[in-house]
Amino acid sequence: MFAERGFDGATIRGIAGVAGVDPALVHHYFGSKDKLFLEAVAAPADPDELLPEVLAADRDALGAAVVRMALRVWDGPARHGGLALLRSAVGNEWTAKLLREFLVSKVLRRVVATLGFDPDERAARASLVASQLIGMVMVRYVLRLEPMASASPESVVAALGPTVQRYLTGDVVLPEP
Amino acid sequence: MFAERGFDGATIRGIAGVAGVDPALVHHYFGSKDKLFLEAVAAPADPDELLPEVLAADRDALGAAVVRMALRVWDGPARHGGLALLRSAVGNEWTAKLLREFLVSKVLRRVVATLGFDPDERAARASLVASQLIGMVMVRYVLRLEPMASASPESVVAALGPTVQRYLTGDVVLPEP
Repeated sequence: MFAERGFDGATIRGIAGVAGVDPALVHHYFGSKDKLFLEAVAAPADPDELLPEVLAADRDALGAAVVRMALRVWDGPARHGGLALLRSAVGNEWTAKLLREFLVSKVLRRVVATLGFDPDERAARASLVASQLIGMVMVRYVLRLEPMASASPESVVAALGPTVQRYLTGDVVLPEP
Repeated sequence: MFAERGFDGATIRGIAGVAGVDPALVHHYFGSKDKLFLEAVAAPADPDELLPEVLAADRDALGAAVVRMALRVWDGPARHGGLALLRSAVGNEWTAKLLREFLVSKVLRRVVATLGFDPDERAARASLVASQLIGMVMVRYVLRLEPMASASPESVVAALGPTVQRYLTGDVVLPEP
């Protein structure tokens, strides 16, 4: 349901209906729709706990804050689960949809929401930010390309932060059909 | 051998030795070491045929030229093979090493070689370029995040070209341990 309708379109009632159980049972075992989604995605970290620190950054420091947080998550114990999720997403269309929905609704949308662009521009900027962050993860943790693989987090923040900052708030041509 | 020793370190003689065959047989079936490597990587496109056009770009237009070529390859019939390669690389450490070696020795090293930095700086800039290009592929073709997934190639070139240009020739803090 999350993959098909997105996080906003899916409801616990609807999911319970398809599963043939009472919605109260889903609430009992998973808590909120939010927690159920994290379980469905097998998310190794909870953006609700991590994003407030990122969003506390000044507008001009947001790019660096986003890269720094991504590195802290991936350099920590969540890496194993993150790689497993990435692996499934690359191999399976449904997991790809789930991961996309997770990134959009739980991470990117919240970061760009603070910046005050119209919805189309927010989505465009979010997809640009995603391209640099996911690429960083692929190069540093999957392909292990040097020197990015062994570089200090702060040097990676200094290298990629300005790019993410430009995608968030800078002068950029937006990708469009 | 390519994954373990890299493209430069592997030899047809050595590969033939491990396979227990005459090096002439390897030459007969695969031609050059170059062609054997492309077969081993299962590369869906041959950089030897594509790079001259990229390298013909002016120094200030190289970033855009690299993004444009990557899009042309991935928007074309090579996409299917490219996705298969990416899938294996994410799931398998040896294929990841092969893909890394392919990117470095067949693509990135040749692009940055024209720019005149010292070897460490070339490797650092190449890893930054890789992070943006691979991220673009992941977002556009694997996760299919909009609007990047349906955006016109030229709008993607305009959005990401300046980033790749900065990584190639611009003022950038290099990732280092």
